[in-house]
Amino acid sequence: MKLNPFGHVTPAQIVEAAKRFGTPLYLYDEPLIIERCQALMRMPNAFGLEVRYAMKANPSLALLQTIAQEGLGADASSLNEAKRAHRAGIPYDRIMLTTQDAPLGEERGVLDQMLKDGVTYNICSQHQLELLLPFLRQHPAKIAIRVNPGVGAGESVTRNTGDKYSSFGIHLWQLDGIKNLLSKSGVRLEHVHAHIGSGGDPEIWRENIDRMLELIELHFPDAKVMNLGGGFKEARMPDEIAANIQELGEYAKLRVTEFRKQTGRTLAVAIEPGTFVVANAGYLVTSVLDIKSSGPDGFDFLILNAGMEANTRPLLYGSRHPFYVISTRGELLSSEFDLESATNSLNAVVVGRCCESGDSQTLDDHGHVLPRKLGNPRPGDYVVIGGTGAYCSSMTLINYNSYLQAPEVLLHSDGETSLIRKPQTFEQIVVNELPHPRLTLPA
Amino acid sequence: MKLNPFGHVTPAQIVEAAKRFGTPLYLYDEPLIIERCQALMRMPNAFGLEVRYAMKANPSLALLQTIAQEGLGADASSLNEAKRAHRAGIPYDRIMLTTQDAPLGEERGVLDQMLKDGVTYNICSQHQLELLLPFLRQHPAKIAIRVNPGVGAGESVTRNTGDKYSSFGIHLWQLDGIKNLLSKSGVRLEHVHAHIGSGGDPEIWRENIDRMLELIELHFPDAKVMNLGGGFKEARMPDEIAANIQELGEYAKLRVTEFRKQTGRTLAVAIEPGTFVVANAGYLVTSVLDIKSSGPDGFDFLILNAGMEANTRPLLYGSRHPFYVISTRGELLSSEFDLESATNSLNAVVVGRCCESGDSQTLDDHGHVLPRKLGNPRPGDYVVIGGTGAYCSSMTLINYNSYLQAPEVLLHSDGETSLIRKPQTFEQIVVNELPHPRLTLPA
Repeated sequence: MKLNPFGHVTPAQIVEAAKRFGTPLYLYDEPLIIERCQALMRMPNAFGLEVRYAMKANPSLALLQTIAQEGLGADASSLNEAKRAHRAGIPYDRIMLTTQDAPLGEERGVLDQMLKDGVTYNICSQHQLELLLPFLRQHPAKIAIRVNPGVGAGESVTRNTGDKYSSFGIHLWQLDGIKNLLSKSGVRLEHVHAHIGSGGDPEIWRENIDRMLELIELHFPDAKVMNLGGGFKEARMPDEIAANIQELGEYAKLRVTEFRKQTGRTLAVAIEPGTFVVANAGYLVTSVLDIKSSGPDGFDFLILNAGMEANTRPLLYGSRHPFYVISTRGELLSSEFDLESATNSLNAVVVGRCCESGDSQTLDDHGHVLPRKLGNPRPGDYVVIGGTGAYCSSMTLINYNSYLQAPEVLLHSDGETSLIRKPQTFEQIVVNELPHPRLTLPA
Repeated sequence: MKLNPFGHVTPAQIVEAAKRFGTPLYLYDEPLIIERCQALMRMPNAFGLEVRYAMKANPSLALLQTIAQEGLGADASSLNEAKRAHRAGIPYDRIMLTTQDAPLGEERGVLDQMLKDGVTYNICSQHQLELLLPFLRQHPAKIAIRVNPGVGAGESVTRNTGDKYSSFGIHLWQLDGIKNLLSKSGVRLEHVHAHIGSGGDPEIWRENIDRMLELIELHFPDAKVMNLGGGFKEARMPDEIAANIQELGEYAKLRVTEFRKQTGRTLAVAIEPGTFVVANAGYLVTSVLDIKSSGPDGFDFLILNAGMEANTRPLLYGSRHPFYVISTRGELLSSEFDLESATNSLNAVVVGRCCESGDSQTLDDHGHVLPRKLGNPRPGDYVVIGGTGAYCSSMTLINYNSYLQAPEVLLHSDGETSLIRKPQTFEQIVVNELPHPRLTLPA
């Protein structure tokens, strides 16, 4: 029996991993990651497809190795991410760096070497370009431009990435100036990027492709790659619908085919999925510490041994995750995907062990608690938080309340598990501290 | 000239620290921390005052040493926090452990030893008590009880700590059961705790004290300490008003004096401030990387070399912080505390360098951007984010986008600075990773 219709993990495997490695732990479903990579690499296309994994979603070494093996490149958001991608076996010429940073000093030397080694640099501001121009005049380099089309697709301001509320990329009013600077320096722009975070809504996706083709026709005569960015929605909860890669690919294929007929120009398509690759492959496996009720007109609380310091997304963005309750003997006591089994169940607010009001896994966008049906777990049972492969271990309030970072475990297709990140130690969270130079520490 | 009327740091000191240690860095104003500790230790009281620093706000070793030197104890939220407090020279008998955790296995051994060494354990649930009872029957130990009075003072559900939305403490309906369990085992409850996070609003503070005295009279005949918890508001922004410790202390003093007249019983008062001790002592010193505009009807953006991964509070809770813009020569170009100087200034959205829409320091509670006047900085100038001593370095999305944790620097009263946490290295963020056991890493 599978825990989740999207994946391969069974309750027995959860219990085995929990007993072997302890809780909390992050467990990753490797065959699902491979399937997602293969689906992306097979996305319909007319004149070539480049898939770069948005590694900020989860930059763990072994996951990057798995993803690299499937032929994906890396979308890196910082020099350190590019280093981690290369360290995992992704060649520099399959890495694109799209960053808000403007490396100076020592870091600038690292960047220059990466450019010589074949990294594509995605220009995101006039200032970045000005810093880079002296290098570009002397060395050939792969240069892209990130355009901010002035249109966003997010559900709130903090989720918009392509409109006037967003600082990302070159805004349209600056485009002519940038193009002038580039052409004066003899730099050809072969790669045009616009990430609006469509979520995979077909309508928004179509509009974005149409808009990009207009931009490319009008502004970028040398463009050979149309990069649509990432943000493809994954369905974490039963009522959510994932982006349809097949359908999205078909539309892009149709439009670049028409574009060639009209202009004679051939465009490859590039995409940068992160969530889509890893989100549903991740499970945060926790143990129930305590169960409480605030009274007859109050709430039931399930206290887990991991919360905001292991999955901050509910507090940051009100994200919803499926919960699975598993007994220590491996029985699935309740599952988001089988709500029938949750009748007469605890209707519980799920919280962590931090001394912080916001430490909840069941919050809406406004910080209000939303109780969820969870069966009737007892202390010691496992509560598994699904959909935690992306932006969980990589984007958390690590070490808040001095709790230690949880280990990461990879579940292979044959059911074997491997530790891919060791548990953090107490010494590691204090290793950089220096004692007060004028006060004495106890012996 | 001081940067901030609340503190001692000058623009010249900021520039000196930035040049010596690089940016981003956290800078702490030690004399202000000492003043805040002394003000708390002098809070009016009738029959004794215990001040424990809520160390989750900032558990850096050297800061704990400074705070310990002033006579404060520690309010620890986890066993690891208690370890860190003791390591900094706070004796176990000045540490109280108030946690949602229920230590088992090895950790249980650590807890038992701490109890023998004099740590006060604050019982927060029936389950915690049941786990502890066998130990308590055999060993004397200092036991407190955290009561959830069913009344909160936060501004939103995620900021309430004492009402039905909150899992913290023993809810009133369970009190009789807990008291029975304790008295059967011969455990005397001398310490009663209720943290509602009053913020220091005098009206809420008075109500909380009156309510606690009623609870103590009705339920806790052995109580000797009334612990009011923490959450005292600090004024980070010019339009905010800090909790008036003097006034709060006077009311508590009056009421415990009356209580003694009425009941013959003597109560000491305990408080657990965190923010109040360190918030305004902290400055996140960043460099301006880039300045952008999304167009005539858009926004100006100031891109700093630190953001959500160094101060997550704006994204988590919409918190506001003062900004100071300082030139590389040490001129204060603009300050939240001198808005006159900001006329004709950039009205800017302040963002970090993460590839994330939410990476902004100027957000409201709903994730909307709120531009702020910031003078006319240039790339390379310093933007200093004030009010970042509490819940910033201790509660951040460390390493998101693979950026490194910033170092911490202590500014002493004589103007000298000491490094108190070394900058994190690239190797440290990958040290626990293990390569995929079935795939080959490049040489």
